[in-house]
Amino acid sequence: MLPHLSTARKGPLLEIERHIHAAQPDIEHWFRLQWQEHPAPFYTSVDLRNAGFKLAPVDANLFPGGFNNLNPDFLPLALQAAQVAVEKMCVSAKRFLIIPENHTRNAFYLQNVATLANIMRKIGLSVRIGSLIPGLEAPLVLDLPDGGTLILEPITRRGDRLLLRDRHGEPDFEPCAILLNNDLSAGVPEILQGLSPAQGMLPPLHAGWHSRRKSQHFAAYDAMARQFAALIGIDPWLINPYHANCGEVDFHTRKGEDCLAGHVEEVLARTRVKYREYGIGREPFVIVKADAGTYGMGIMTVKSSDDVVELNRRARNKMAVVKEGLAVHHVLVQEGVPTFETMHEAVAEPVVYLIDHFVVGGFYRVHTGRRLDENLNAPGMHFVPLAFEETGSFCDCSAEPDAPVNRFYTYGVIARLAALAASLELERTAP
Amino acid sequence: MLPHLSTARKGPLLEIERHIHAAQPDIEHWFRLQWQEHPAPFYTSVDLRNAGFKLAPVDANLFPGGFNNLNPDFLPLALQAAQVAVEKMCVSAKRFLIIPENHTRNAFYLQNVATLANIMRKIGLSVRIGSLIPGLEAPLVLDLPDGGTLILEPITRRGDRLLLRDRHGEPDFEPCAILLNNDLSAGVPEILQGLSPAQGMLPPLHAGWHSRRKSQHFAAYDAMARQFAALIGIDPWLINPYHANCGEVDFHTRKGEDCLAGHVEEVLARTRVKYREYGIGREPFVIVKADAGTYGMGIMTVKSSDDVVELNRRARNKMAVVKEGLAVHHVLVQEGVPTFETMHEAVAEPVVYLIDHFVVGGFYRVHTGRRLDENLNAPGMHFVPLAFEETGSFCDCSAEPDAPVNRFYTYGVIARLAALAASLELERTAP
Repeated sequence: MLPHLSTARKGPLLEIERHIHAAQPDIEHWFRLQWQEHPAPFYTSVDLRNAGFKLAPVDANLFPGGFNNLNPDFLPLALQAAQVAVEKMCVSAKRFLIIPENHTRNAFYLQNVATLANIMRKIGLSVRIGSLIPGLEAPLVLDLPDGGTLILEPITRRGDRLLLRDRHGEPDFEPCAILLNNDLSAGVPEILQGLSPAQGMLPPLHAGWHSRRKSQHFAAYDAMARQFAALIGIDPWLINPYHANCGEVDFHTRKGEDCLAGHVEEVLARTRVKYREYGIGREPFVIVKADAGTYGMGIMTVKSSDDVVELNRRARNKMAVVKEGLAVHHVLVQEGVPTFETMHEAVAEPVVYLIDHFVVGGFYRVHTGRRLDENLNAPGMHFVPLAFEETGSFCDCSAEPDAPVNRFYTYGVIARLAALAASLELERTAP
Repeated sequence: MLPHLSTARKGPLLEIERHIHAAQPDIEHWFRLQWQEHPAPFYTSVDLRNAGFKLAPVDANLFPGGFNNLNPDFLPLALQAAQVAVEKMCVSAKRFLIIPENHTRNAFYLQNVATLANIMRKIGLSVRIGSLIPGLEAPLVLDLPDGGTLILEPITRRGDRLLLRDRHGEPDFEPCAILLNNDLSAGVPEILQGLSPAQGMLPPLHAGWHSRRKSQHFAAYDAMARQFAALIGIDPWLINPYHANCGEVDFHTRKGEDCLAGHVEEVLARTRVKYREYGIGREPFVIVKADAGTYGMGIMTVKSSDDVVELNRRARNKMAVVKEGLAVHHVLVQEGVPTFETMHEAVAEPVVYLIDHFVVGGFYRVHTGRRLDENLNAPGMHFVPLAFEETGSFCDCSAEPDAPVNRFYTYGVIARLAALAASLELERTAP
């Protein structure tokens, strides 16, 4: 059940796919070498945009939610990948602590945490969920949409180790490793600071949004996309959106507005040139988003620099804060990649999931009420997840380039490229 | 579609399964450590016998045929495992040579070779098939049951490297690694001797039946089964058949017959004690088989030492040679493990496949014309492969121990134990 691609636009994408399939041995060989040099993060999800004429990642999430949306048929693949990750990281690990977000009312998110815990348990780890919810004193039992429950336990600390205590306050569970599924938008809580390196943190703390910058990710992606495009002989633009970033921007005082308007104009102009080169008869747009943070807050679609200057108060307020009240100061200007995949008239955007360097599945965000140039990962946005019916982990080079198995392989390749960029980004930003 | 277990016998097996599921975190942790110390062979298939009251490997094949019998739904799992194996072995490998058996008329075997080649190609390797067929001068194109073709090419040598030549005799393909799917029953051909270690051979040459001995495998399995049984608190006999081996035996001159009869008596006596201990109301039997070699030739079922002495000429001739005319000199005496799994009244024996240390599926040999105590992998034996519907790679510890997913997990655990023993065996026998 592959979403229908707009036929008129599929030509050039087929061109990218053809290049990718023809170069498959070189691509896999190149990835093998790259992963040796840049070990993959523990897990990554990559939001892709398939414009028909170009295919690009627009976000790489290092604390992916949504594992519950993957096709359960591919669970063994996730298990095997998690096994490889655990073997590499800490061969003697037995006890795993997962630290999720504090959203206790988002049942689907809780189901994601339960799915993650399930993956780690099925590979033989003893798993408990520790919560950062302020003031949590006793285990909190939460109902899950699938009828199960999730138990969130208060975390305590002894010296430089995290642990869970039993109801008598006695140390009960000292994890060998901690899997963060909390993006640290609100900063690194004191309890997580200065922990012993022996208690491995996955991914490392500096992957959190308190310090991570999208512009650093896309700078790393530039480098990887350039190398990759040279390897298979394509224009890197076909897999990489233009971007630029501003220093301090204050949407209230309008400080930095000129810089922002300038970058918007520049990215639009460069995109227009490419559109002409490839005969793409549409108007370019850019996405302006917070350089840190997630959850689709602080994002806007603009078609000219005037759009930035003419923002009304409401739009300014919306742009000024992202998740957990974090103020937007740095802003990323990214070439907008329209979404041309549709499913029964609804816009569909692929999200690819990786554990370690393995693609373990993905799903489409399918949304009926949005335009092609809007961001689908926005607050209040109710998407329907449509699990991929193919894993995206391999290609059937004897089939047509746009056969579902191969379309998903292409998605898997670009998603791996984004995960590789995330690895390079984390190396460059390591404290 | 799990074969029906004979209900009367399933009690004790449920006991083993219950122990295995209860100890799952310890088991997985133990395997993680073991694989670090004893890296898994590139691939292994393990023949299991499920007696209801015991579950044991009776053969570990280091050149598995039958990849074509696996459930195609699990292909991504095999690909991911092969990827891990290739990364470990030779990260820069691009060109792979597969050397299969010389059976050009066994269409199902050829389909196995094609499946293997397919796995390696799908992970991005360039794969060609080199043949040891004597006198082969030009590529041989063979039809496959699935409608495809397989091309066997003559191998040539330059210095200490193997290569393939184009039709002008020019070097055309120098592989980085060689995957043997030929068990070397006829010895190591000269062309494979003294090759550069840079051209990695998988598995190593000494895994071939020219030098491998089942008794060495089961000695290594003894050690692993003992450790494993201690870990989960069971009697090792429940997962390990008794065995003994004789030095020189000549079935024609009857040399060594006394030794053989003595071992048969001893294994029967020890088994009888265990049967009494567990209240198993059946007569024990032993399998006498060539200590080297495969393909179910040179195998007989005996119920007393008299059976060995009273062999008629025909049975002696049958025992005296195995595959490729290899004479039987060394003989393994192994406690027979009856098969209690049936499928529509037919006897069903599980075979589990591993790539590296990952279980990637398996199938049942289902055969209607055989008794429960006979070997199903025998010449002229036409089995129906029944692909496992579960991968065997993980357990769902919340389900019943004999739920299909868990039955296959148990199979996967015992198969991994046999693969681990094969690794130890190859270490001990390395030249």
